[in-house]
Amino acid sequence: MAVRALVFDVFGTLVDWRAGIAAAFRASGVSGDPEELADAWRARYRPILTEVNDGARPWGNFDELHLATLDDLLGERGVDLPSDRRHRLVDAWHRLSPWPDVRAGLEALRRGRVTAALSNGHTALLVDLARHGDLRFDCLISAELAHVYKPAPAVYETGARLLGVDPAELMLVAAHPWDLQGARAAGLQSAFIDRPLEYGPGSPAREDPDATESVGDLHELAARLAP
Amino acid sequence: MAVRALVFDVFGTLVDWRAGIAAAFRASGVSGDPEELADAWRARYRPILTEVNDGARPWGNFDELHLATLDDLLGERGVDLPSDRRHRLVDAWHRLSPWPDVRAGLEALRRGRVTAALSNGHTALLVDLARHGDLRFDCLISAELAHVYKPAPAVYETGARLLGVDPAELMLVAAHPWDLQGARAAGLQSAFIDRPLEYGPGSPAREDPDATESVGDLHELAARLAP
Repeated sequence: MAVRALVFDVFGTLVDWRAGIAAAFRASGVSGDPEELADAWRARYRPILTEVNDGARPWGNFDELHLATLDDLLGERGVDLPSDRRHRLVDAWHRLSPWPDVRAGLEALRRGRVTAALSNGHTALLVDLARHGDLRFDCLISAELAHVYKPAPAVYETGARLLGVDPAELMLVAAHPWDLQGARAAGLQSAFIDRPLEYGPGSPAREDPDATESVGDLHELAARLAP
Repeated sequence: MAVRALVFDVFGTLVDWRAGIAAAFRASGVSGDPEELADAWRARYRPILTEVNDGARPWGNFDELHLATLDDLLGERGVDLPSDRRHRLVDAWHRLSPWPDVRAGLEALRRGRVTAALSNGHTALLVDLARHGDLRFDCLISAELAHVYKPAPAVYETGARLLGVDPAELMLVAAHPWDLQGARAAGLQSAFIDRPLEYGPGSPAREDPDATESVGDLHELAARLAP
């Protein structure tokens, strides 16, 4: 089936959260290895989304969830940090830089097809990230519109519905096999993009043998999808 | 209160629906004055939205509502037109050209503030219009996300919520006093933009004395809002 539209995961797939969050920890005055702190904060991401999806926790947007996981992390480590500095760390998720191929790669892909973000991040956060990185999408689609987080099928289905395409005509581009698997379970096509530095130089190798496409960057994807 | 974000009505405010729809009628084989047919079709727009908002008619997106009002119009005039030609007319609403100031004016306004479409049109339609006119928004917000049509307050409130701003920090830009009045009722600021050719050379004069700003085009608005 032809790919009529592309949707993109954002954190890790398009933007380098680790470098931005490590820099924010470095500026925060919190002692310890900034990269390790970034990884430890991010490690609390999927568990808290699962709590929300399971109904064990009320809905919260990423600012609220990031603050909750930061409070947990700092509490566990006995770090005392004033509220305004915690909020500055939470705000750092709004100003993350894209991977080097992303700005031009999105432009190339947008020439041929409708392109949209499809992220668990809330709309206002996605707006800030797109403006910060000068990333152009046709549309931003947040999990908040489905009121449930990826990999719940409703998020991918919401993307297809809003873009007016059949799920089978929609392709998710992501660096995370769990996300691509969620997309396939909702009937979407999937493209794995390798981001070998998402967790720094020692990142675990990833692959997704079930993905329709498997590429090293967005330019390679544009070439593969060219008519 | 400072304006942190701008939302834009689309049909009539940013794009010239009348020229595009008249051209589509001209190509359709329907006899009669194409401009008059465009006006007569558009005249059925607000009444059918009111039916939806009142619960007298189930939710329908603009493709569905445009088809229903076209069927009514052609039926009333005894025009026989095959289904594929009706659909071509409905599709013409996806390819309307912007007024001359819009592309560059949106860019200028986007430099200083978050900018989003806030339209009764469905998301897929807004995507097509933005791509057709090469219009860049930070975000597209459709009434379909609120499942009710402007001027219902929920649409404007949805815009503020998704953009993460207080309604009082959000300004609607529109050519239609009824829309601006709806925005004000939801606590937004409002900017009237004069589109004296929306209904062709004989358009009725409009003004909105209650609007915060009243301008002739988007460049004038950018100058007014400059810090």
